[in-house]
Amino acid sequence: MKPLPVIRTIERMQSTADSLRRRGKTIGFVPTMGFLHEGHLSLIRLAKTRADTVIVSIFVNPFQFGPEEDLERYPRDFERDEKLCLQAGADLLFFPEAGAMYPEQYQTWVTVENLTQGLCGASRPGHFRGVATVCAKLFLAVKPHIAVFGEKDYQQARVIERMARDLNFDLKIVLGPIVRESDGLAMSSRNRYLDAEERKQARVLNESLSLAEAMIDQGEKEAARIKSAMEDLIRSRDRIRIDYIEIVHPETLNPLNTVEGPCVIALAVKVGGTRLIDNRRIGKKP
Amino acid sequence: MKPLPVIRTIERMQSTADSLRRRGKTIGFVPTMGFLHEGHLSLIRLAKTRADTVIVSIFVNPFQFGPEEDLERYPRDFERDEKLCLQAGADLLFFPEAGAMYPEQYQTWVTVENLTQGLCGASRPGHFRGVATVCAKLFLAVKPHIAVFGEKDYQQARVIERMARDLNFDLKIVLGPIVRESDGLAMSSRNRYLDAEERKQARVLNESLSLAEAMIDQGEKEAARIKSAMEDLIRSRDRIRIDYIEIVHPETLNPLNTVEGPCVIALAVKVGGTRLIDNRRIGKKP
Repeated sequence: MKPLPVIRTIERMQSTADSLRRRGKTIGFVPTMGFLHEGHLSLIRLAKTRADTVIVSIFVNPFQFGPEEDLERYPRDFERDEKLCLQAGADLLFFPEAGAMYPEQYQTWVTVENLTQGLCGASRPGHFRGVATVCAKLFLAVKPHIAVFGEKDYQQARVIERMARDLNFDLKIVLGPIVRESDGLAMSSRNRYLDAEERKQARVLNESLSLAEAMIDQGEKEAARIKSAMEDLIRSRDRIRIDYIEIVHPETLNPLNTVEGPCVIALAVKVGGTRLIDNRRIGKKP
Repeated sequence: MKPLPVIRTIERMQSTADSLRRRGKTIGFVPTMGFLHEGHLSLIRLAKTRADTVIVSIFVNPFQFGPEEDLERYPRDFERDEKLCLQAGADLLFFPEAGAMYPEQYQTWVTVENLTQGLCGASRPGHFRGVATVCAKLFLAVKPHIAVFGEKDYQQARVIERMARDLNFDLKIVLGPIVRESDGLAMSSRNRYLDAEERKQARVLNESLSLAEAMIDQGEKEAARIKSAMEDLIRSRDRIRIDYIEIVHPETLNPLNTVEGPCVIALAVKVGGTRLIDNRRIGKKP
């Protein structure tokens, strides 16, 4: 296999995108923070079915981490990522430097208002401003026809979709399903922070979602009862602190009191020092 | 002369831009709020010297007007604008509807932080958020290679330039010089609000800038003394209230105490009920 071309500057990324577009190629884009796992790879493969050229970006965006969060220890392994991208069918890696993305005097921010109020937006102030801003910047650098995001970060996907539509980005956002470990834990680069005991306890995120889904299947409509059953299950493990458990409308992300149509059950917990999120979409697919 | 093509939807604007770009044409863009005057027309002619195809947008952007401002009475005359654009050499008019630009659920904003703190940003909260947002949206709709703005709105030009650079917009911002009436009043669509007496008094904006420039030419370096002389001159007219008089750094827009290198002298006043701005750049051109 010949090595994956790696582009390090915004200018070269843009001229490469221009040249692909002039040659009539469609560009599929998978933005990542690196340390790739099967979840990312499934998005690359999905992009490959929808576009001629698949560009993966690796950029650990400092502005989506809070001051108390794990920016410094966020795992990085560029060489491994490069190999995995190539195997998954990526055609090009965009790996910009932080100094080029946020030069001195940088001062522009993209905010999405309503969708960022609840869920992770409530516990991570500034997080989605960082996400929306970096995605706008990456879209303008890579000039994709489609951009693929994982449903694991459900709120993020909705925020980016809204941002792209609101600002007139001429691209389509495509969502890929959550990929899970064999015991049901949603894949995440942050899973590697877990020690053996925490790793075992972390199964309860997916288990609580399955419990909720089963209750809804059996006709339960009261969001409060479903959330309280999930809470009881999670509280039966030590070392887990609940950040939120919510049942929300799939488009507006507004909390629902009654589960009648499609909804998303979403939760965030801390397992030891590691923040994990998961969700399940009930009813129609996005 | 054949009539000017008018595009009313974002989708058609984007596909037209794509098709121009595929054919190797460069796109010059002049965004306006309509009710064009010689200032706008000079920007269209400037764009025409720098790009193959010149697209003018006309959109009275509601989100850059404050609640007490003149959105409703802002002058509009599409047919006249269309003729003037054609005569000035525009190739295409983009005239989107407000409902398409800001559909229901719209909730995304672009903010530029530092450059918007002083000058007009201080007296018009939210104004530059509206400007930066609509320009990002228009750039994404029109896909220009260059976009031309007037130096009359100096702070606006700097804010948009910063926004475009920060977000990786692949385009060049070009500034056109202020165009003045024969008595020196800077052209503005808002001049038409002035009655005969106000119109006469409004000359003092340009006169005060000339006074300041003369003082600097004669070696005055103290910003406070220059501003105070401008203030005295303006206060000698009735019906004029000063909003601000500032001498700022041309790039950072930070107020200067001492005038040594290049600077911009900027002021905003109310003549009767009409807010007018003007500025003069001293030293190197942008």
